[in-house]
Amino acid sequence: MSARVLVVDDIPVNVRLLEAKLSAEYYDVITATSGAEALALIKAEPPDIVLLDIMMPEMDGFEVCRRIKADPATALLPVIMVTALNEQSDRVTGLEAGADDFLTKPVRDLALFARLRSLLRVKMLLDELRLREETSRQMNTLRDVEKRDDLLNGQKILFVGDQADEGELIASIFDENSHADMLTDPGEALEKALAEDYDMVFVSLALSAGDPLRLCSHLRSNVSTRHVPILVLVEESEPDQITKALELGVNDYIMQPINFSEARARALTQSSYRRYHDELRGALEKSVDMAFTDGLTGLYNRRYVTRHLASLAQSQGAEDHETALIMVDIDHFKNVNDSYGHDVGDEVLKEISKRLQLIVRGQDLASRLGGEEFLIVVTNATVENAEGVAERIRSDIANEPITASTPSGNVEVTVSVGVAMRHSTTETPDRQLKRADEALYEAKRGGRDRVVMAA
Amino acid sequence: MSARVLVVDDIPVNVRLLEAKLSAEYYDVITATSGAEALALIKAEPPDIVLLDIMMPEMDGFEVCRRIKADPATALLPVIMVTALNEQSDRVTGLEAGADDFLTKPVRDLALFARLRSLLRVKMLLDELRLREETSRQMNTLRDVEKRDDLLNGQKILFVGDQADEGELIASIFDENSHADMLTDPGEALEKALAEDYDMVFVSLALSAGDPLRLCSHLRSNVSTRHVPILVLVEESEPDQITKALELGVNDYIMQPINFSEARARALTQSSYRRYHDELRGALEKSVDMAFTDGLTGLYNRRYVTRHLASLAQSQGAEDHETALIMVDIDHFKNVNDSYGHDVGDEVLKEISKRLQLIVRGQDLASRLGGEEFLIVVTNATVENAEGVAERIRSDIANEPITASTPSGNVEVTVSVGVAMRHSTTETPDRQLKRADEALYEAKRGGRDRVVMAA
Repeated sequence: MSARVLVVDDIPVNVRLLEAKLSAEYYDVITATSGAEALALIKAEPPDIVLLDIMMPEMDGFEVCRRIKADPATALLPVIMVTALNEQSDRVTGLEAGADDFLTKPVRDLALFARLRSLLRVKMLLDELRLREETSRQMNTLRDVEKRDDLLNGQKILFVGDQADEGELIASIFDENSHADMLTDPGEALEKALAEDYDMVFVSLALSAGDPLRLCSHLRSNVSTRHVPILVLVEESEPDQITKALELGVNDYIMQPINFSEARARALTQSSYRRYHDELRGALEKSVDMAFTDGLTGLYNRRYVTRHLASLAQSQGAEDHETALIMVDIDHFKNVNDSYGHDVGDEVLKEISKRLQLIVRGQDLASRLGGEEFLIVVTNATVENAEGVAERIRSDIANEPITASTPSGNVEVTVSVGVAMRHSTTETPDRQLKRADEALYEAKRGGRDRVVMAA
Repeated sequence: MSARVLVVDDIPVNVRLLEAKLSAEYYDVITATSGAEALALIKAEPPDIVLLDIMMPEMDGFEVCRRIKADPATALLPVIMVTALNEQSDRVTGLEAGADDFLTKPVRDLALFARLRSLLRVKMLLDELRLREETSRQMNTLRDVEKRDDLLNGQKILFVGDQADEGELIASIFDENSHADMLTDPGEALEKALAEDYDMVFVSLALSAGDPLRLCSHLRSNVSTRHVPILVLVEESEPDQITKALELGVNDYIMQPINFSEARARALTQSSYRRYHDELRGALEKSVDMAFTDGLTGLYNRRYVTRHLASLAQSQGAEDHETALIMVDIDHFKNVNDSYGHDVGDEVLKEISKRLQLIVRGQDLASRLGGEEFLIVVTNATVENAEGVAERIRSDIANEPITASTPSGNVEVTVSVGVAMRHSTTETPDRQLKRADEALYEAKRGGRDRVVMAA
């Protein structure tokens, strides 16, 4: 997948060198020769990834990286530091500034392109979930504010490798509320990873009991482990293994012998992407739920049930079974509110919703249409089924007073119920709903606390 | 990125051959030797992609493909047909059955892996948007029912190539309400693609005026054209060009000389993915909007404004400017409902919402708290600003009767307004809201149709 890459270096020949490499692979390259120029360009022509030199006059690469990661608009932009330095302390400083990786000049092509693809894959998925800016702003109000220090707290991790001391070192990255499982057999590791819900998996590529890359591949291929961050432990002398691992979808690598600070910085970065991803998905799911459920009772709302009925009607052919609509209305609900106040009224609505939800079967649907009115949709129902459900609703509520904050500790209410079976395959949901409503009206007129079946 | 691949072939040696190839590249391979077995396996261990033989006893590959694509649960599962046949009519039958591509045995490794990666990229993005099953079901009620025949109607396409007759042939795939632009220069094509909103772009790889692959790369790198389906036209004798194009993110290819039916089937498939993608994103955005806006007036709802205030408070430091809360309540609104009915009441609420929206500036926010009560949040406000906005709201409503379905054609209403500036950097949104509410109460007590500033 092509993408726009920003190359930042104060030495023009270095810029041109990387530009030529990337351009030959059909990346769209833009360039800057100072930190300030880079930051301006990021706003003007948003790149998908940044290759950033460290040693630059005025603003060095560390500072540029820090500013990119501090701005919410660009915090997710992947940054690879490219440098002549190969001091561990510099790598740690870079990673702690938020850099995603570190490549040493002269840059090996395979390593560069594998890294680009790997980081771009993650970015594309996140971009996809962020939707448009306005939506992203709305969803942000649903996200918890992320504390970077919290990211390694209470984590459940899996270490797969022969060296127990390496496992201990990895486990020590995480705080004491975390839990680490250590295994040496990749088959056993896969089984455990599928059964448990790990926050991060570490795989040593020096594993003797089987092929560690195959384990990574299986973890990526299974739906339940597809999104877990995987970090591989690898000898510095095995760059091709890193490339292969990144191509498989491994998120990052840690060089052996392990440096605590570097390993910790890399784990933090992965944990941070993971959490952001989970929060975005969570916020999306929450907002879809909110759009379709009633805030007070948690039942489906009128909006959802209306659409649901329309799509049922569309998919139902002549051979299909009947759909029953059961309309439920609390009798004299106004009296409850007037006597005990709205809070008690709300308690009653919630408790009745709970009882309705217990009565409906999995494929059926309970909704609150508004006020004290509910609608149950029962698919594939006979007249007897529907009448049975309706009668059970009525009696469940009539026979068991509702616990509420009243002097007596409860409220006695009854409901009236109207039921309409789908008349013919051409009947619209609106017409069927109207018949259920008329049956409900009959039940009210007949003295309430009763079920009436529409003709 | 690794993934699970299902290989289906009735001849075991063929299965083993593909399995070995894929497994060596660390794909997770599952296998079936009949159509029925394949369909069962797809349910039991969902693969990410299917490699499907055509000639099989009992159920042939075309039928297996049709069944996969007809089931909503698996319609997005990419299918590559692998066959010894290379008859155009078979290719067309396969593509029309919904297959994503056609590979001829013996399968070239490069072509196979490029195709797998390209199809998996699209699938991963779609999977990401589908969220969990329940959410996906809810969102489906927001989608328009897709008619496959409609997919090539009213499309706006761009053809980039030297051969006008090829362009005409491509244009003829689409119905007469569609529009095709034809260009020969890739630079001009990029500019046009960035300016216009094309539904599909066709690029001939035999372009003489520049590098066609670079054009594809630029289209993929720009945010505004990132998701447009690109199909390249390529000579059958240039398989490496296909591989390269797929790696860049091109969606599909059409062999020259162009066969009308095959080109049409491929365009249909891409159009269908595109539409599904747009619908998913659209449904997500719509549901986020619905979660945060008031259904009647389109203003933000209480849920949103509450969260918005909380996040404002969190981000506001000592140096920040003031936030003003302006609470607006329609005077004697009950009389409107009682005299003219709820429909007229709703008209009044909508019209007042419209006027509020016209008065607030871009970064400010108008919301409906419920009933006839509204809240305006003005950031970076001085007392004078806030009072000015409040007074303008009051006078705008008092001076211009609201058009409504009443005997006189309108309704005269007034509003009372309470304004509270943020007291100190430690004041919570709740407390500030309470002061605005008290000011509103003062305005009501003082005779209505007036603005009161909280102390």
